[in-house]
Amino acid sequence: RRGEMAKSTQLIDNEVFRAYATYTAIVLLKMMLMSLVTAYYRLTRKAFVNPEDAESFGKGESSKKFLRTDPDVERARRGHLNDLENIVPFVGIGLLYALSGPELSTALLHFRMFTGARILHTFAYLIPLPQPGRGLSWAVGYSVTFSMAYKVLKTAWLL
Amino acid sequence: RRGEMAKSTQLIDNEVFRAYATYTAIVLLKMMLMSLVTAYYRLTRKAFVNPEDAESFGKGESSKKFLRTDPDVERARRGHLNDLENIVPFVGIGLLYALSGPELSTALLHFRMFTGARILHTFAYLIPLPQPGRGLSWAVGYSVTFSMAYKVLKTAWLL
Amino acid sequence: RRGEMAKSTQLIDNEVFRAYATYTAIVLLKMMLMSLVTAYYRLTRKAFVNPEDAESFGKGESSKKFLRTDPDVERARRGHLNDLENIVPFVGIGLLYALSGPELSTALLHFRMFTGARILHTFAYLIPLPQPGRGLSWAVGYSVTFSMAYKVLKTAWLL
Repeated sequence: RRGEMAKSTQLIDNEVFRAYATYTAIVLLKMMLMSLVTAYYRLTRKAFVNPEDAESFGKGESSKKFLRTDPDVERARRGHLNDLENIVPFVGIGLLYALSGPELSTALLHFRMFTGARILHTFAYLIPLPQPGRGLSWAVGYSVTFSMAYKVLKTAWLL
Repeated sequence: RRGEMAKSTQLIDNEVFRAYATYTAIVLLKMMLMSLVTAYYRLTRKAFVNPEDAESFGKGESSKKFLRTDPDVERARRGHLNDLENIVPFVGIGLLYALSGPELSTALLHFRMFTGARILHTFAYLIPLPQPGRGLSWAVGYSVTFSMAYKVLKTAWLL
Repeated sequence: RRGEMAKSTQLIDNEVFRAYATYTAIVLLKMMLMSLVTAYYRLTRKAFVNPEDAESFGKGESSKKFLRTDPDVERARRGHLNDLENIVPFVGIGLLYALSGPELSTALLHFRMFTGARILHTFAYLIPLPQPGRGLSWAVGYSVTFSMAYKVLKTAWLL
């Protein structure tokens, strides 16, 4: 039992892996918050896509007027999908990067830039800020993931 | 060679990690099944979005009537996207959680609740069940992932 | 410090894990390229969904004509979403598979088939090729992931 515990905490004892775990949990929680933002707009704007959801706001025919799209709901959904498209590669490539033996300071720089950029991206999308605010924050996160992928491929390359 | 195999199976020998691997494979396979559900509805309802897919059901002009949306197809697609939004955080945070040294019984409780909740969510979405059936099953999965993220951040915190 | 580095590179020293890291980085980078394909079509077709993006091409009222959907943009977006639906299970199940102690040659066969199939799928979607080109490339990737999941469940099963 103790042996198993020791084995299981090996990776989590490594500082780079701990940093990876911290920032990955933060960006995944941030992504999950987009569900609540969408739900908030659906409820306050009374704009639903499923008839069984609209039923909570009026029975039968009178609920059908709530089956509609709303600009704020759609904006939150686009922000959520953009998170999926960008945070999934970060989580996958970031794990391999953390295992490829980078310097802690270099790894922290990557993780912090990505996390900061994605938080800015969310604000830029939801407020919304004029371009190129959202575009630049997207590009920073994208470039950080590319940089980590380069290190992974240089270290691990076996085709 | 033998040394390598030993190393590679270290994690998989750990019981918490084995449980993580089992439940992650199950929920990812469940998510993949949504592709087949969508394909089933597209084929039986003859409702396609790509002209080259509709061509299989009629050549030229006569295929254009199959380029349409269908409520069952759209419902399956929404269920699939909701899986992506919720199963991706579970897989990422769950891996870190499994490596953070939880008790096996606690870990199993988390993995079982999440997996059960997501299977219920799929039935609630596809049948569909009246609310709050789908909402509650979504909330259970969401809360489990938050609970695992809390343990990860408490164990690994390095900002 | 040296001890930590040694620990962190244990997994990356394993040949199956190196192959996993290489192919995962490649398919995730391929998925990320879909963002650039979509951006390319949005800019050349002048078809945007966010008013603040359209503003870059005309101020005020004159920018509203760029708030429209375009078939090439929508096609690239569908290819991107299909990547998410299929590459996420590959990355998650593939990691567990790489840790389940497969033969290197068997693992390479799985990773190469999946990666080749997803690259073909992208070309089949964007060109587009007539069916069943896209359908078959999708099915190959899907089957490879199922095969890896079977090995994971056989090795790790703990419910």
